[in-house]
Amino acid sequence: MRIAILGFGSVGRGIARAILAKNLDITVTGLADSRSGVIDPAGIDIAAALAKKEGGGPCGSPDVSPADVVAKADYDVLVEVTPTNVEDGEPALGHMRAALRRQKHVVTSNKGPIALAYPELRDLAAANGVFLKYEATVCGAIPLIHAMQEGLAGNTISRLYGVFNGTCNYILTRMAEDSLTYEQALAEARELGYAEADPTYDVEGIDAGVKLVILANTILDMRTTLDDVERTGITLLTPEALRLAEDQDCTIRLIGEIVPEAGVLRVSPRIVAKAHPLVVEGTLNAVTVGTDLAGDLTFIGKGAGSMETASAVIGDLLYIRDRHVQGS
Amino acid sequence: MRIAILGFGSVGRGIARAILAKNLDITVTGLADSRSGVIDPAGIDIAAALAKKEGGGPCGSPDVSPADVVAKADYDVLVEVTPTNVEDGEPALGHMRAALRRQKHVVTSNKGPIALAYPELRDLAAANGVFLKYEATVCGAIPLIHAMQEGLAGNTISRLYGVFNGTCNYILTRMAEDSLTYEQALAEARELGYAEADPTYDVEGIDAGVKLVILANTILDMRTTLDDVERTGITLLTPEALRLAEDQDCTIRLIGEIVPEAGVLRVSPRIVAKAHPLVVEGTLNAVTVGTDLAGDLTFIGKGAGSMETASAVIGDLLYIRDRHVQGS
Repeated sequence: MRIAILGFGSVGRGIARAILAKNLDITVTGLADSRSGVIDPAGIDIAAALAKKEGGGPCGSPDVSPADVVAKADYDVLVEVTPTNVEDGEPALGHMRAALRRQKHVVTSNKGPIALAYPELRDLAAANGVFLKYEATVCGAIPLIHAMQEGLAGNTISRLYGVFNGTCNYILTRMAEDSLTYEQALAEARELGYAEADPTYDVEGIDAGVKLVILANTILDMRTTLDDVERTGITLLTPEALRLAEDQDCTIRLIGEIVPEAGVLRVSPRIVAKAHPLVVEGTLNAVTVGTDLAGDLTFIGKGAGSMETASAVIGDLLYIRDRHVQGS
Repeated sequence: MRIAILGFGSVGRGIARAILAKNLDITVTGLADSRSGVIDPAGIDIAAALAKKEGGGPCGSPDVSPADVVAKADYDVLVEVTPTNVEDGEPALGHMRAALRRQKHVVTSNKGPIALAYPELRDLAAANGVFLKYEATVCGAIPLIHAMQEGLAGNTISRLYGVFNGTCNYILTRMAEDSLTYEQALAEARELGYAEADPTYDVEGIDAGVKLVILANTILDMRTTLDDVERTGITLLTPEALRLAEDQDCTIRLIGEIVPEAGVLRVSPRIVAKAHPLVVEGTLNAVTVGTDLAGDLTFIGKGAGSMETASAVIGDLLYIRDRHVQGS
């Protein structure tokens, strides 16, 4: 199977490393970062591209743009793993449209286009007889979307709630463990690379909200936007609040919740019994899916990370490879 | 899609109820319990069969045997949900062979044939161009096999461990909660229908061991039998042992574990920190899968029950329906 990769940051390089390390029958024929690109129908030397990128250089030539790779490379699947833009989804959204129109499958970790334009992209994929897969957009390594679309296919989902943001979970875990203030725990998360310089996207619950929108629109057949999410972040939480919860064998977690029948999407700090399966530590994610036949199911795993997100992308790639790519 | 159901106990009736309640595009053309059977190419009246069975009668005519249904009914998928026999897998094993030779897909919740004869059945299914699916044999409602075969497809699994038996987990939960003796907790489990009159299969770790054998042979490419499982049950555990664990913020769980590289399969009571995601309460199951790319993933859900097991069977049926059954 031939793939073109857009984005050669943490996720793109994780995918490249997995392809190098494993016998996945995947050839990379196109590759672009924000500054450069390379196209080679015979297969790009991925080890060399990784070395160039990690040496601080571009991965390819400045004369080849991401749009060139999308339009001209010879691939079966476009792997779109550039950073998320939740404002208008661009430039990823345009690249996905162009690839789907070329009858290329699309696999992405990019939340923006899926949260903003899923119905359009799904219809475009269907019209062109190709797959659009996005497991990596929600909860990194956890195969949540696969589980809901396949294993739980006969179930009606009545509720879906959990810890969708590892940064907030890390901050809350540290505040409870060592009575840190929010600011102290945030500083620690930044030092460890778990929080961005501007942490707004995580700590205000926007990231969790976008994931809820993706699940609502793609799995639960709702039509929602980020504006539909009732949203409270964790910035005003105090060590005292966590201590009060602790006194009752509880703790506080930033919980994202969807109740499809009520049309509710909500992200807010909630008091949860410590014995609850959703109370995970550190940067983990955990999601409980309430169903009519299977009861409640909880999935716990790493919500972010280079190889973890690559795992989800590769799961999608192999899904497509085993079904619809012939003679490659 | 047309199916034939062998076994009209808890699981078979759960499947029938789900088919009645939902629009799954599934027609039942054959049905048998241990005493009777019915074949109708136009579709059996499932509501009437349920009513007969629940009134204490047979589901069909004493002149139609399960073997007749397998050999003569007109179906796409054989749904084999009779009780597990781990000695020789019969009569389920023979029925599965016969269906596969007729080029019929097979979906089962029956651990015996999968634990004893998976390589043979898999090859027979492949030779006849049909699917053999068995999600319901391990951890009931949890789509564990789907997750490992699909979502985590690119990963190498280095370790797999968890709580595979709800009966033992219920007994251990109650011993810890109320300082019950093993005998007291077992009596309570029996009253609630969580334990059989002869609980040996559960409490000696045989059930958990069989599930390990299934996972080892079908997912981890090992060749094992129940004799390869180092096995210790929970019958000798005392409330004192649980109290000692409690003193260290731990508890005791019957943990099944596979370490593929070391060739180890083991079921034994283990001391586990209470904060560990595997420490679930009551009859729940929980499994942690250790992988190279995705890290550790934990799956928690109901390991048994009529509708829960039916959920797994229906997930497999829809998987087949969406892929390989045409014009039905």
